[in-house]
Amino acid sequence: MNGIGATTLLHALEWRYATKKFDSERRIAPETWSALERSLVLTPSSYGLQPWRFVVVTDPEIRGRLVKHSWGQAQPGDCSHFVVFAGKTSLDVEYVDRFLALTCEVRGISPAALAGYRNMMVGDVVNGPRSASVGEWAARQAYIALGQFMASCALLEIDTCPMEGIVPAQFDSVLGLEGSGYTTVVACAAGYRSTQDKYGGAAKVRFSIGEMVQTV
Amino acid sequence: MNGIGATTLLHALEWRYATKKFDSERRIAPETWSALERSLVLTPSSYGLQPWRFVVVTDPEIRGRLVKHSWGQAQPGDCSHFVVFAGKTSLDVEYVDRFLALTCEVRGISPAALAGYRNMMVGDVVNGPRSASVGEWAARQAYIALGQFMASCALLEIDTCPMEGIVPAQFDSVLGLEGSGYTTVVACAAGYRSTQDKYGGAAKVRFSIGEMVQTV
Repeated sequence: MNGIGATTLLHALEWRYATKKFDSERRIAPETWSALERSLVLTPSSYGLQPWRFVVVTDPEIRGRLVKHSWGQAQPGDCSHFVVFAGKTSLDVEYVDRFLALTCEVRGISPAALAGYRNMMVGDVVNGPRSASVGEWAARQAYIALGQFMASCALLEIDTCPMEGIVPAQFDSVLGLEGSGYTTVVACAAGYRSTQDKYGGAAKVRFSIGEMVQTV
Repeated sequence: MNGIGATTLLHALEWRYATKKFDSERRIAPETWSALERSLVLTPSSYGLQPWRFVVVTDPEIRGRLVKHSWGQAQPGDCSHFVVFAGKTSLDVEYVDRFLALTCEVRGISPAALAGYRNMMVGDVVNGPRSASVGEWAARQAYIALGQFMASCALLEIDTCPMEGIVPAQFDSVLGLEGSGYTTVVACAAGYRSTQDKYGGAAKVRFSIGEMVQTV
């Protein structure tokens, strides 16, 4: 394992900002983008269930339609890669079993060894307390992915803009997600900041550590 | 700006896993922890409003009580630093104005220059469409923090375990959050994996990029 220093980490997180204007001519290199796709798939999730899909929009015509459903913001059109984070709308036993079958395959263990784990998942998110709010549970998981993705991009010197100002139902329609079992939760534009983005050099506004972090 | 390579990033994200058993003797060094607190504060949020507090629990007695409200999981007691992510339960104009006053101070601009921004925030999360679900909106923001925190820790070679299996109301009671305007959303244990954690060497289970990432 080779980690990085705290200075490098904080430098990247300070450098990051919600990019308003992307350089529409610059594209993320394919090998860098491949790494970022892998980082998305590596996102931690509740029970490891990965209740999401990541839709990467590269087609200019589709991007143009998404701009119209993004409160008029230009980022979906101007960025290099536009990612829509979609969450599962429901969770059934079949999905859990498919995840467990993959676990058995990857780890070389028997399904019997995972019986307790299966019962816990089914008794919680399929039939238990969280089953009534699976959509919101999945949406929260998608936000873990969003957080990890923005940090990962910053470390690779890729700019991002998280976008909640979108119309999920319209995104679902444009992306063909209706009836797929997944629905748009949030989106994130990725690419390179324009030198004309006046926010690129703006000081970061954060409440103090003393106010936001309480130690007990 | 000095970024890192994609290999270093992916190495850290592959190394990370939900640590079941922490080495209860090892503590995160103060300077490393300070950097992680700063990384928490740097988390991106909707409109930049930072609707959260991070409660770092170091007191052994309090940790013991949290174990009881964590479905019996030992991580709150065994880890080095236990972080509770609390989200705002409501949002008022005063909070927005306090954030805007800070923005004016940090960036040396006048409140008048932020009038449109203020109207947008108030018309959305205070009085508009999102005001009815501010708690969930804040919870999602806390999950961005969780995602960035776990990635940051992995890059600094710190182990983590995200914990949704907790009883938020009991956490609120133990931590004195009741009536504070903040409520427990999720938690994360941080520290160093025990060499006895059998999950430390387990292969990672992820659906394939081809299945999880759709490019259109």
